[in-house]
Amino acid sequence: MARDHASGFDNGRGVSARLALTGLVNGAVLTTSPQPVISSRREIMSDPTIIRRRTVSSGNSGASTQYQPYKDAAWGFVNHWYPALFSHELVEDQVEGVQICGIPIVLRRANGKVHALKDQCLHRGVRLSEKPTCFNKKTISCWYHGFTFDLESGRLATIVANPEDKLIGTVGITSYPVHEVAGMIFVFVRDDDFPLADVPPLEQDLPVRFPKHSDRYPHPLWPAVPSLLDENAVAMGIHRIGFTNWRIACENGIDNAHLLLHKDNSIIHAMEWVLPLGLLPSGEDCVEVLEDPEGPKGMLQWLGTDKWQPVLENKELGLKVPGLVGRPYRTSIVLPGLVAVENWPGEHMAQLEWFVPITDDTHEYWEVIVRVCNTPEELAAHKYRYERVYEPLALHGFNDCDIYARESMEDFYGDGTGWENEKMVATDISAVTWRKVASRWNRGIAKPGRGVPGARKDSSLRFKRAADGKRISYKTEQIED
Amino acid sequence: MARDHASGFDNGRGVSARLALTGLVNGAVLTTSPQPVISSRREIMSDPTIIRRRTVSSGNSGASTQYQPYKDAAWGFVNHWYPALFSHELVEDQVEGVQICGIPIVLRRANGKVHALKDQCLHRGVRLSEKPTCFNKKTISCWYHGFTFDLESGRLATIVANPEDKLIGTVGITSYPVHEVAGMIFVFVRDDDFPLADVPPLEQDLPVRFPKHSDRYPHPLWPAVPSLLDENAVAMGIHRIGFTNWRIACENGIDNAHLLLHKDNSIIHAMEWVLPLGLLPSGEDCVEVLEDPEGPKGMLQWLGTDKWQPVLENKELGLKVPGLVGRPYRTSIVLPGLVAVENWPGEHMAQLEWFVPITDDTHEYWEVIVRVCNTPEELAAHKYRYERVYEPLALHGFNDCDIYARESMEDFYGDGTGWENEKMVATDISAVTWRKVASRWNRGIAKPGRGVPGARKDSSLRFKRAADGKRISYKTEQIED
Amino acid sequence: MARDHASGFDNGRGVSARLALTGLVNGAVLTTSPQPVISSRREIMSDPTIIRRRTVSSGNSGASTQYQPYKDAAWGFVNHWYPALFSHELVEDQVEGVQICGIPIVLRRANGKVHALKDQCLHRGVRLSEKPTCFNKKTISCWYHGFTFDLESGRLATIVANPEDKLIGTVGITSYPVHEVAGMIFVFVRDDDFPLADVPPLEQDLPVRFPKHSDRYPHPLWPAVPSLLDENAVAMGIHRIGFTNWRIACENGIDNAHLLLHKDNSIIHAMEWVLPLGLLPSGEDCVEVLEDPEGPKGMLQWLGTDKWQPVLENKELGLKVPGLVGRPYRTSIVLPGLVAVENWPGEHMAQLEWFVPITDDTHEYWEVIVRVCNTPEELAAHKYRYERVYEPLALHGFNDCDIYARESMEDFYGDGTGWENEKMVATDISAVTWRKVASRWNRGIAKPGRGVPGARKDSSLRFKRAADGKRISYKTEQIED
Repeated sequence: MARDHASGFDNGRGVSARLALTGLVNGAVLTTSPQPVISSRREIMSDPTIIRRRTVSSGNSGASTQYQPYKDAAWGFVNHWYPALFSHELVEDQVEGVQICGIPIVLRRANGKVHALKDQCLHRGVRLSEKPTCFNKKTISCWYHGFTFDLESGRLATIVANPEDKLIGTVGITSYPVHEVAGMIFVFVRDDDFPLADVPPLEQDLPVRFPKHSDRYPHPLWPAVPSLLDENAVAMGIHRIGFTNWRIACENGIDNAHLLLHKDNSIIHAMEWVLPLGLLPSGEDCVEVLEDPEGPKGMLQWLGTDKWQPVLENKELGLKVPGLVGRPYRTSIVLPGLVAVENWPGEHMAQLEWFVPITDDTHEYWEVIVRVCNTPEELAAHKYRYERVYEPLALHGFNDCDIYARESMEDFYGDGTGWENEKMVATDISAVTWRKVASRWNRGIAKPGRGVPGARKDSSLRFKRAADGKRISYKTEQIED
Repeated sequence: MARDHASGFDNGRGVSARLALTGLVNGAVLTTSPQPVISSRREIMSDPTIIRRRTVSSGNSGASTQYQPYKDAAWGFVNHWYPALFSHELVEDQVEGVQICGIPIVLRRANGKVHALKDQCLHRGVRLSEKPTCFNKKTISCWYHGFTFDLESGRLATIVANPEDKLIGTVGITSYPVHEVAGMIFVFVRDDDFPLADVPPLEQDLPVRFPKHSDRYPHPLWPAVPSLLDENAVAMGIHRIGFTNWRIACENGIDNAHLLLHKDNSIIHAMEWVLPLGLLPSGEDCVEVLEDPEGPKGMLQWLGTDKWQPVLENKELGLKVPGLVGRPYRTSIVLPGLVAVENWPGEHMAQLEWFVPITDDTHEYWEVIVRVCNTPEELAAHKYRYERVYEPLALHGFNDCDIYARESMEDFYGDGTGWENEKMVATDISAVTWRKVASRWNRGIAKPGRGVPGARKDSSLRFKRAADGKRISYKTEQIED
Repeated sequence: MARDHASGFDNGRGVSARLALTGLVNGAVLTTSPQPVISSRREIMSDPTIIRRRTVSSGNSGASTQYQPYKDAAWGFVNHWYPALFSHELVEDQVEGVQICGIPIVLRRANGKVHALKDQCLHRGVRLSEKPTCFNKKTISCWYHGFTFDLESGRLATIVANPEDKLIGTVGITSYPVHEVAGMIFVFVRDDDFPLADVPPLEQDLPVRFPKHSDRYPHPLWPAVPSLLDENAVAMGIHRIGFTNWRIACENGIDNAHLLLHKDNSIIHAMEWVLPLGLLPSGEDCVEVLEDPEGPKGMLQWLGTDKWQPVLENKELGLKVPGLVGRPYRTSIVLPGLVAVENWPGEHMAQLEWFVPITDDTHEYWEVIVRVCNTPEELAAHKYRYERVYEPLALHGFNDCDIYARESMEDFYGDGTGWENEKMVATDISAVTWRKVASRWNRGIAKPGRGVPGARKDSSLRFKRAADGKRISYKTEQIED
């Protein structure tokens, strides 16, 4: 097993790419002294050709009107599948509350099955999850006045102290379909009036499946990319809050031009990779829109082909990358905001990243590594390596840099300035294509949150929590008696 | 004395009510196993009858237009008497600043008498209370430029460095009538132009007096309920900030349907009370509007009579309370937002609770136990029991649960959502009646605060204080030199 | 040297003024017992004459329309010179980011010269200063995507990973002229379209020069007041954030009527000064507007002449100052908001104070003592005394009181209330004159900040920082890898 992984990385390391900017020092001047390059076995990206100029029009041109729905989606897209919790975060009878797209959602596992309801009592609006109260396996009750809801349908089943009230059976709270797979709990976050009959399968909100679509989206290098829906697939990962709007976080995830940000990451240097200065699109067809009727909607980038060219030199700055050593990978993004990095951070894996809107300026950042483990031994070995390499060096070390990059954009985009004043360049074709496809295919724009944390930005409760040293959180903070 | 109290509780315990939901566990399933019930001597509420269905229309029906003034009163009602401080919080020459209904108020005791003025210098608007500066017993001066105000009238008496300025004697700051009684300092919080001649006596903003009105609001069980205005009345209690709008805090105070919230309170179990699941109104006359021309305006609930029926069973959930053991009590609420709980938490007592608006999302929560103590021994014994039982188990243990319930409603009501989307049921007749009577009889709706803390929700000063670990406060934080 | 200073203070002490309010106690009553007065050698201000009444109309009269531009300048005036950093805060190759008038500015020193550019990458709006990245002495690069800007002009010189992009050479970020003198770095904070050719010399935004203008603004007592532009001038001082709008901070700086605030300061008592109760204007000509075509624009107060009379008695309060002992000083203010205190805190010095707008409710408060030191020995002796006396007792001890006075005004002015409701008196002629002259002569009103910290008052990032115990800051908080 361990050898299997080692061989996996061996392949990766052989493919080429090394960042030559080792001497780069913050706030000081760099004299670029090209580093000796580790020999690469496959040099598919090592031939720097002349890059054609290609500019994507910026937001203040007419282009931005093509993604107006995206610009309107500060609170996210609804009527989509979102990850809510890992399976291990919700054991039998456990209750947790989360907020997605401004909608408070309570989850409870009963008899093994996970149920999800709107986490706002219809009576006086408190969150059921704040003080979990359940009298049986079929219902959840509000801790305040005992309004009791059917876990399946959300209908008001009874009121503890008012068992014959006329409201009973006639009203309810919205229920959300749940799909649990590969250690993850997904919730279909719907508008109150979105018909349950119209809920699509989870597969439509997950990346393109392989090898089923290997002909459509081929590449000689990719091993069959595992899916969460594969038999014996396992998802290992983390999730945490990001203090930015979900869209600028998404765009960071599919951005091919910010390799500079990652130059100092330990994983790069531990693997002895050499990264290019960046990747440039060599034509209009560098990205492919995913819009099969029954498939996920999004965009796939032809990384690792000659449709994207590595930049190895910047003469103006005297920077030169003499050769590349690295792991070949390919990225795509599908609605509602899920980035997939195929063949990363190791062989036979995919890293999935969701940017789940909480409010208009917070999101839950999910990083999950998917792998098929067909035997307990394989699983144990993968878990061992996950804990020692992938989580600390990839999910944290590498992606932690992305977190501050997203926070750095928040002031610019948070008040609307960025959408008007940004200046896009050739590589931003990724973000711009995503904006357009998301605008065309989303199933609904979330209304601004109402009656939930973050709907008002400035309640005294928020200041109280800050004064007490408590950050805003994704999960409901439960009341301690 | 101690025996007197013990006997008092004895009576109470005998009257009936015990919460049978002992097995209820947060987040887990409850198998209701009815508890053995302590035998009760008087079982006045132990006969569960069929409850008639009765629904109060919700806010989104026409009903809410009947209390539009209440919905407009986010910052409270003015031209009413509010408690400002306990007497012991303001010793001779002490100066304190508070904020009520968005109005900053400075209090000073001089020659034993308490004076209250608008705590905003007319010159540059600073709070006099931030750095108390007094040159004699008749005035208070602003620490910044020495503007000096007459304590009685608020008129500008002089300016330290400008003793002949034309403004002197021609302008001033608003003065507020003060009534100190039973260890409490009350301030009549008036609009700047509300005539002093029209200020009603404090009695009009306190609960109905007994035994004077025992015929009007009779009940065989109530001992004569003490009033703050009774000879030898003593008020013991606490006050602290609540991070919610004052109205939802009030409504929690008169809510008969949230017994579930209190099921785990130590006072219930220490006293071996058994509570019903809830109380249901059996008719329209379950509450009585208080609107005598010269009396307080509000609403009294006929608890402890057959107009409110205890709910002892919920078949849907398999919950059953076989008998009741508890303390009989009756609640009422009067303007400007004062809940009285008669016969609580002990015999010959009343618990008074004010919800004093500070801003539109904070209030000062007052809990006071009133008792008549005719001898020093009686007072000492009461104080001893207050400190060991009532304050820790009732004012804290029991009512602390109400504090988080109110905070839990704040997101829902704070942005206006709750007033539109709430769904009221039969028991909410209490809140709805209160809303209507408050709308009819209030003496003025407070204007949104201006130039005061909380008027802007998001000043950098608020963030600074939060970063420094300081919560928003009711009293002025005084400057340390 | 040390004797020179001693003699300087000797002169000062001799001039007269002592605060007789020694017995003044916060929150308690004062019985004024006039103190024995230290004999004074020159008693120029010791003859208390009758003060003529003079009232300046308040903001709610027509007067305020004369300074509407000032009222509109919540975010400050642009197209002016502002101090950005002390020279020692920016060593070779160091990069720092600051924010002035809502404009983020990055500074870098290369080959000894300081450059200033807009600190907002034109691509995605992140601040270059968050993670300083420079590849040579001529440029600064964005750490995110490698957009690289010419330090002189701000033009886009290259993109690290996109060296042939069409944007290169055609766009750029705004550059700001820099003038470094006497240990301070000044930046001309301009609108993006303010022509570089029109940038005035720094001298136009500094106080009037002496002895050049001694005839215009004479006083027998002033020694030639040093200027930052004098040969061998040295500026020693501090700067820190103030959590208020810059305008009310400015006005505190030229206020002659708040001596009460400073009565307890150690510097007063260490020097054995006796202050008057206040200073009153004796005529319209007590202040002089500075509006020479080529000179600074502002206002100078004829303190130390019979145009301002010390108030030595307040009969109403029984306060009497029998004589004065103090340091003669004169204050002025010029655009963009720079207070000069001549002859303070010692002989041959001037204290300069800038109130540099960061946002509409924060400013950077600069306190600088300027002195000419012609020899190393003189410099060493001055520095020694600066560190032991001026910084702790004047810049901190004395002016710290002004900081809380400004914070105390923020609630009143921050929501606009103060500008309408303030009541001005005779001594406020200083602030009112300043408001008018600033309205007439400013070179531009800053637009409200966009896309910068503070533009939105309530982002979750601000709450996160507060919860983490971090205050809002003037300098960019740099990312730690």
